[in-house]
Amino acid sequence: MKKYSRNQRVSAITKILIENPNKIINLNYFTSKFNAAKSTISEDIVIVKDTFSSFSMGKVETVSGAAGGVKYICGIDKKDIKDFAEELCLLINKKDRIIPGDFLYLTDVMCDPIIISKAGRILAAQFSNLDIDYVVTVETKGIPLAYEVARMLGVELIIVRRQSMVTEGSTVSINYVSGSTKALQTMTLSKKSMKAKSKSIFIDDFMKAGGTAIGIVNLLKEFDSELLGIGVLIDNIEMKKKLVSDYISVVEFNGFNENREAILQTSRFVNEI
Amino acid sequence: MKKYSRNQRVSAITKILIENPNKIINLNYFTSKFNAAKSTISEDIVIVKDTFSSFSMGKVETVSGAAGGVKYICGIDKKDIKDFAEELCLLINKKDRIIPGDFLYLTDVMCDPIIISKAGRILAAQFSNLDIDYVVTVETKGIPLAYEVARMLGVELIIVRRQSMVTEGSTVSINYVSGSTKALQTMTLSKKSMKAKSKSIFIDDFMKAGGTAIGIVNLLKEFDSELLGIGVLIDNIEMKKKLVSDYISVVEFNGFNENREAILQTSRFVNEI
Repeated sequence: MKKYSRNQRVSAITKILIENPNKIINLNYFTSKFNAAKSTISEDIVIVKDTFSSFSMGKVETVSGAAGGVKYICGIDKKDIKDFAEELCLLINKKDRIIPGDFLYLTDVMCDPIIISKAGRILAAQFSNLDIDYVVTVETKGIPLAYEVARMLGVELIIVRRQSMVTEGSTVSINYVSGSTKALQTMTLSKKSMKAKSKSIFIDDFMKAGGTAIGIVNLLKEFDSELLGIGVLIDNIEMKKKLVSDYISVVEFNGFNENREAILQTSRFVNEI
Repeated sequence: MKKYSRNQRVSAITKILIENPNKIINLNYFTSKFNAAKSTISEDIVIVKDTFSSFSMGKVETVSGAAGGVKYICGIDKKDIKDFAEELCLLINKKDRIIPGDFLYLTDVMCDPIIISKAGRILAAQFSNLDIDYVVTVETKGIPLAYEVARMLGVELIIVRRQSMVTEGSTVSINYVSGSTKALQTMTLSKKSMKAKSKSIFIDDFMKAGGTAIGIVNLLKEFDSELLGIGVLIDNIEMKKKLVSDYISVVEFNGFNENREAILQTSRFVNEI
């Protein structure tokens, strides 16, 4: 059976860990894959662990016990977070993004994997110490971001729908009032989707007054799921009166200046880390 | 300035490449990050390249020229693809997945990052030789899968909507006839979303008769975008008459047997690779 060099094992272990965030991988998986002794694999893992920590690229944790092994917990360097937030402000602050009704066109941003995978890593890292079962979002634009956070935390994504679908079986629907437009809206979720007594976080692309977040709070009550955190990419701070107070964001949008340019800044949360 | 060992550099280079699929990374980025000579970094990259190829874990390609560097192209071992398809059949073939109207409940499958990241890698690997600009999908359930394919191919995701949204500006809408129910449906896409003369692939969770795919073909014509391929996770082969012929799938669903169990099998495409 083929033997591999330490360099090769270290590269392959790194790849496997990165592709399975927050998932415990038993050392036996590596010993059989690389045809190497457990002590050798343990030394390889120490190298990977030290590398990730020297570059602030997340961490590798050892989990002891019968179901034990190692797992990768995502992380991102503070400087990278700040650089990312600043670049995002510049990207969003383009005149041609303003569309009738004073909305910012953000669809391309929310669908760009290079932006969203980094944003997802930033948000996931803030919630990585929580023991959650689900990342919840509301369709449609925030789905890629919420999916990234779920992938990084190794948990299932729950997509709340605007209307019930025949392919989802029995559903629970709630009505909620939009915080900004005061319009009555509906959200619905398949009864099969969540187990009871679960723990969740809510991830969305944009927060205005927080009406959607309150809707999620109420919907999750129906599913007996506890909401442990809220994270959004962009927070509209022009809306002073928020319906929720405890949430994090990456970038803040503060309306338009006299030249009709969007005012954007790195969020308070990012500045404090 | 700190120096790093070869093992450490190899681990960090692996991580950076995996986190940026299909994106060219200039060697200067590595030389300055690791404070090492270009020749040293080149040797590190050869190790990573050999490792990925020994384990059939995708490949690392060198791109020459001024804008040159290295890039990771996703790939997955043939045996892993077959194992994945078989496991997916077992997972879907559960009686409690059958919901009124003879639909299969698949929401949890389509939102599970462990399943979707692997499915995304499988589909992306089949299209990695095409030079595309966009991965296109229709909301909602296929979004995580399409996002994964887009992430792996390093291109933007385009989410076609069922109705136009105020936050998307001017839109183009088309009507199409569902291949299975013959109902008239609408799909809409923001005019800002695609550049002209682009190339796309279409990714979806489930294919019945292919009406949605035909809708996408027609919508992309309006945007002057060429459709180069179609990939779905599950193909309903009980629908014999398909409106499209050229597509790939991972798993085939062939209706229910006399015990009201779903009949599932690894797709023809997977068996041929």
